[in-house]
Amino acid sequence: MLDRLLAVLRARFGTAPALTEAPRGVEILADMANRRVIRRYLDKPVDPALLDTLCAVALSAPSKSDLQQGDIVIVSDKGQREKLEVLLPDNPWVKAAPVFLVICGNNRRHRLLFEWRKRPFVNDYLDPFFNAAVDAGIVLATFTAAADRVGLGSCPISAIRNHAAKVSDILGLPQHVFPVAALGVGWPSFEGVMSPRLGLDVTIHRDRYDEQGLADKIAAYDK
Amino acid sequence: MLDRLLAVLRARFGTAPALTEAPRGVEILADMANRRVIRRYLDKPVDPALLDTLCAVALSAPSKSDLQQGDIVIVSDKGQREKLEVLLPDNPWVKAAPVFLVICGNNRRHRLLFEWRKRPFVNDYLDPFFNAAVDAGIVLATFTAAADRVGLGSCPISAIRNHAAKVSDILGLPQHVFPVAALGVGWPSFEGVMSPRLGLDVTIHRDRYDEQGLADKIAAYDK
Repeated sequence: MLDRLLAVLRARFGTAPALTEAPRGVEILADMANRRVIRRYLDKPVDPALLDTLCAVALSAPSKSDLQQGDIVIVSDKGQREKLEVLLPDNPWVKAAPVFLVICGNNRRHRLLFEWRKRPFVNDYLDPFFNAAVDAGIVLATFTAAADRVGLGSCPISAIRNHAAKVSDILGLPQHVFPVAALGVGWPSFEGVMSPRLGLDVTIHRDRYDEQGLADKIAAYDK
Repeated sequence: MLDRLLAVLRARFGTAPALTEAPRGVEILADMANRRVIRRYLDKPVDPALLDTLCAVALSAPSKSDLQQGDIVIVSDKGQREKLEVLLPDNPWVKAAPVFLVICGNNRRHRLLFEWRKRPFVNDYLDPFFNAAVDAGIVLATFTAAADRVGLGSCPISAIRNHAAKVSDILGLPQHVFPVAALGVGWPSFEGVMSPRLGLDVTIHRDRYDEQGLADKIAAYDK
């Protein structure tokens, strides 16, 4: 199984770390490293209780400063979905996705706590937006990892944030709650596509930031 | 195993979804749902090749618009670590962590591509910061999930961003590369603490954002 993990990493990054012994969970690591973008699905529903379970697992992930600022909107209503799909003409595949989610950053709850206690919200800078955005990223990543483990495929849709105001209107998001990414989910009808990644010496740094030879490394990746 | 998953979710959220059949991977879902914050470690090193492998798995996760704007700085040099630890007086445990990482958002590479091609960077708004922050969150979440699978414990340190300028100086981060969170990692010397979470009816919404009864739900959580 170590061989498979290293082969997957080489396919993804061009090289693999010099790991010589299979760690516990090596099979899952290989599956995680082998993550595919899935945009084609079987015509088979996803059990709503399974979907709720995956959401709960996603919300069990770490949260920045434990503030729990990532929310999930499960969009099942046909009318609601159609309104959102119209905003995504470059993603026609999403219409066939059995499940459609919108992952949101939510800094409203935090602010409400101050309001309820009649205290001024003292951190009204970029930071709360930043933290809520990171939490949404954490929820998104953990949801896709959990979905992969049960055999469900998924594909994030960043384009949803190009229409943040319209999406907020459709979903009734109040101020300080904002869409970060949508996600199509379903049982895969094909094995999916592996997105290649920049070399590990581009995105992993040792002790200090290092971009020596970056132009050459990116040129190698583009090939 | 379904029983264990549901018991863990009840411990985390107070309730659990009405799942009646164990999905594939139910054991891993239960482990993910049972994620613990680990701040105490065995005096046992982490194989550098294993650490690199976990970083690679983390960087295999989805990336917003596929722009790959999450970076990892592995800080092993004693002098570098001490300079960072001084900034974290409220996290004395971090000194004993065998591994210390700083997860960064990186919008510099994207900008450099425009510079190299002598094109103006047309998206110089909040959006690039937002996307890089979300990517860093995705890398953070995927790293901690991968580390958990091999039996390593971890604890994110949000406080690092309170000193973004100093951290950037220590790590040599250029403009548009910014620290999002640090992470202590090691072999756990205790079973860890489960962070309780707000009820699932607070953070999961159906078709539209819903905060009915929010004050009562948060009061229930606080108990």
